Parts: sequence; C-alpha cells; structure tokens
Amino acid sequence: MPAHAFLDRMAVKTNAALHRYVDTWEGAPHVLDEAIRYSLFAGGKRLRPALALGAAEIVSGDADIALPAACAIEMIHTSSLIHDDLPAMDNDELRRGKPTLHKVCGEALAILAGDALLTMAFDVLATAGHPRVIREVAQAAGVAGMMGGQAIDIKSEGKRITLDELRRIHACKTGALIRVSARSGALLAGADAPTLDALTAYAGYIGLAFQITDDILNVVGDAQAMGKSVGSDAANEKSTYPALLGLERSRALAAEAVDAALMVLDPLGPKADDFRALARFIVEREH
Amino acid sequence: MPAHAFLDRMAVKTNAALHRYVDTWEGAPHVLDEAIRYSLFAGGKRLRPALALGAAEIVSGDADIALPAACAIEMIHTSSLIHDDLPAMDNDELRRGKPTLHKVCGEALAILAGDALLTMAFDVLATAGHPRVIREVAQAAGVAGMMGGQAIDIKSEGKRITLDELRRIHACKTGALIRVSARSGALLAGADAPTLDALTAYAGYIGLAFQITDDILNVVGDAQAMGKSVGSDAANEKSTYPALLGLERSRALAAEAVDAALMVLDPLGPKADDFRALARFIVEREH
Repeated sequence: MPAHAFLDRMAVKTNAALHRYVDTWEGAPHVLDEAIRYSLFAGGKRLRPALALGAAEIVSGDADIALPAACAIEMIHTSSLIHDDLPAMDNDELRRGKPTLHKVCGEALAILAGDALLTMAFDVLATAGHPRVIREVAQAAGVAGMMGGQAIDIKSEGKRITLDELRRIHACKTGALIRVSARSGALLAGADAPTLDALTAYAGYIGLAFQITDDILNVVGDAQAMGKSVGSDAANEKSTYPALLGLERSRALAAEAVDAALMVLDPLGPKADDFRALARFIVEREH
Repeated sequence: MPAHAFLDRMAVKTNAALHRYVDTWEGAPHVLDEAIRYSLFAGGKRLRPALALGAAEIVSGDADIALPAACAIEMIHTSSLIHDDLPAMDNDELRRGKPTLHKVCGEALAILAGDALLTMAFDVLATAGHPRVIREVAQAAGVAGMMGGQAIDIKSEGKRITLDELRRIHACKTGALIRVSARSGALLAGADAPTLDALTAYAGYIGLAFQITDDILNVVGDAQAMGKSVGSDAANEKSTYPALLGLERSRALAAEAVDAALMVLDPLGPKADDFRALARFIVEREH
C-alpha cells in the first residue's frame, strides 16, 4: 500500500477518535471548545498517530488498541504548535494554511487552549490504563524531550551551533515525541523487547529524516503547498541542516536515515511494509 | 495542632518530594531547570498538597502515600500561576513577593516552563500507578475545570456578572483543583465512598471560603504581606465577591462555607482535627 493510503487510513481512525474524545468534554466553555477544535482539526498529516497505530498493528494486528496514545500525542503536538506560534515564541501568522490560533481568538485564549489540550491529552492517555506509557509520553514531551529541545532552540537563536548541537536539539524537540509515538503503540499492543527496540530505532531514524526534509522544504518549498511562510527559519535566525551542511549534503543525510530506518525493520518481515513505504515517503514529500 | 503547624508539616514533606522529583530530571537544559525551580520553590503555602496528604492521613494514617498527587497538583498549580502572570493574561510583575517568571527569563521561556511543569506533573502522578486519579486530576485542571474557569473569567472581564456566574467561575477556576487534591489523596489511600464524599465536600467548601477570602484580601490586604499588588482585581476589572456583595456579606458567606466544611467532617471524628483547624485558618489568614 502506498504511504499516503496508509497515512489516510490511520488519519481517518485518529480523527474519528479525536472527535469522540472532544465531544465528551462536557462543561467546557464554548470559547475554549471552539479554540481547541480550530487547532485540532486544522488538517494535520497525523504522522505521530500513524506511527502509534501502525506500530500497534505490526505488533498485534489491531491498530485501534493504540488510539488513546495516538490521540493524546497528537493533542500534545497540537498544543506545542499553538504555543510555538505565539508572538513571544516564533510569532507565526499562518499554520497549515490558516491564520494561527492567537490571530483568531487572541493570545490569552491561545495560551489556555494549548494548556488545555496538553492537560486533556493525559485524560485521554489514562483511559488506556497503562502508567508506563503515560510516564514515557510525559517524559518525551517534557523537560528532557520536546519542551527541553524547544528551550535550547530558543537560547540558540542567532548563535552558530555545531552539527552535534543541532542533532541534539532535534532529537529532543521533534525526535522524542515521534519515537514515543511508535513506542507507546508497541507497548499498548504488548510488544516484546526486540520488536519494541526495532520500532523505536525506526521512529528515531524517520524523525531525523522528517526534520531534515522539513528544513530543506523551508528553504526550497512552495509556500502554498507548505501552508506556511517559506524562509521563516532564516528570518528567525534558526540553525538548520541546509544552513550547516548545504542542500546536497542535507539530502544525502536524510536518505541515509531512511536507509537505516529500512534496515532496522528487516526482522519484522512483510507486516512492516506500511512503515517501509512511510519511511520513503517522508523524504519524497513536497509539503 | 494549630493549622500553621499542620501546613508546615505537610509543606516540609511536599518540598522534599518536589526536590527529589526535579533532581531526577536528567537531560533538562539548564535554563529550563532554573526557570522551573525559580517558580516551584518560591515559597507557596502548599495548600493543595496539604489537602492531598491530609486526606490520605485521615483515611489510612499514612500521608506519604499521596505524595505523587500532592506534588503533581502543586506543579499544575504553579504552571497555571506562571501562565496567568503573562502579559497576555493578567500581566502581573510580582508573585509571592518576587518578580514573576517572565520578568526574570522572558516570555518564551516562561511559557515553556509552564508547559513543562504541567507535563512533568503527569510523569510524577503516574508513578502512583492509579489511572483513575490521573483522569480526575487532568479533568479538574482541564477544559471543564481550572482552565475552563480561566477562559470564562477572561471572557467576563469588564462585564457585569451575577453571583451565580461568579460561583461557577470559581468552582472551576480554583475549586476543581482544590477538590481533586483532597479526592486524589483519599483515593490513593483507599477511601470508602462515604469518606471520599465527605472529604470532597469539605474541600469544595474550603475552596469557596479560600476564594472569597482571597478576593477580600485583594481589596483590604497589606501588599507586603500578600506579596502582590493589592487592588489588582479592580484594576483588571475582575468581578469579585466584595464587588458583587460588599465586604460584610462576603465575610459572612466565607464564614458560612467554613461552618459547612466543619459539619461534613463530623462523621470522621478526631482524626480530622487538622482539617478542622485548616478550615478556620483559611478565613482568618492575612495573606
């Protein structure tokens, strides 16, 4: 199955489950509910849910067992996008082709909507009743994961950093949540240790390939296809792979990461074919 | 035992446990670690942890069993204070007698530190291995709890609201997290249903008394003792109990809430004496 068909199949499951969860939040004030739905259903690729559901499917044949993790991680990811776009952070006006949330409803409500999505993610995740997965997801998002990487990134803006430092920032900022997506799906499906390790390594490599490709597209992409301003990293003086290595070496590095991702899937046989297609798709995509 | 001795005893346990948790966060970037410690160890009263630990002690004789909930809820509370103080929210420059976090380290890092505290709270909470408590805490903080109340509060600024609307805002904004403090302590200690109900009702009443007293102190308090600007609610056009009812009727309402809190404790006998002292202390405090 081509990667877009796999992504679409998992996105349908994810969106249906996200709607079910949000619909049960009785007592939420209308303004907050609207703000959350605006950001959560803005048409994301649902890459992280696809990794969680796909990992569970590879392990047990049942993708749906990972829906609490898939939805919780997407909510945490969406929360981080809302806060990253704020004037005090990246000051972005466009996200997925639409005005950013604070442009629509003001900064105060955008801060609260991000907080609320982050909080309700753990309500959703706890429905799976698996404390280890809750801890792993919190740690992947927290001080030594996504938010830690974001803090280092902020402190590094306008400074020259080395390739090792850039790798470390991205391993935290985007890599940790991508890795825990596959891990939590595998854990909820009852994976044995070698399978858990293989899926974790796979997610680590495609996380790297995804980030390098994102950096490349930020330089050479089509603004309309991307749904955000092209060249914004350079304007914000952010260090990127193309800035440090040039486009050609960046593309080679992304291709190497995909090769490594394919290699660690070898022991899993044909049932990992969707993940193989996904790995190739990540560097070939145009937005 | 007088209430301040009870609060001090529980604060010592809470602070020691919070330090233990934060010390285990390996890989946190220094700037984020510093920002978190600045806010978390700024000398709060630790009212919510005292309710969690005190409830566990009443139920089982062992306060410490509730430390994961006590610390997680204090982290969530601290996260909300950091975000509430931001320029886009209440724009406060002083908190607990010290400059607010964004004044010290900038808005971007303050937003991230609040996000990280909120996230790591669920890592800490999950160490107790009790999914129901995780769900209750997330719901008390989330869209229909603290953050929901905050969203209604923001939308109500500068508008005339009724006493019922004010009660609803506070039942969410401060009441929900105070109630879940007592509930989570009781649940982790294995409370039976009547005890859980009594402790929940108690916390609801003292939450109300606490909020009314806070509003009163914001009008008549000593700025130095409060550690924040007196009269800031009026300046922000916030509806308060004194603004709606006058000082005298507000004081009477707080006293009624304390009486109700004492009454629901009756079936618990002498082992609830610390909670009785705490209820009286809440309306007698000066900051």
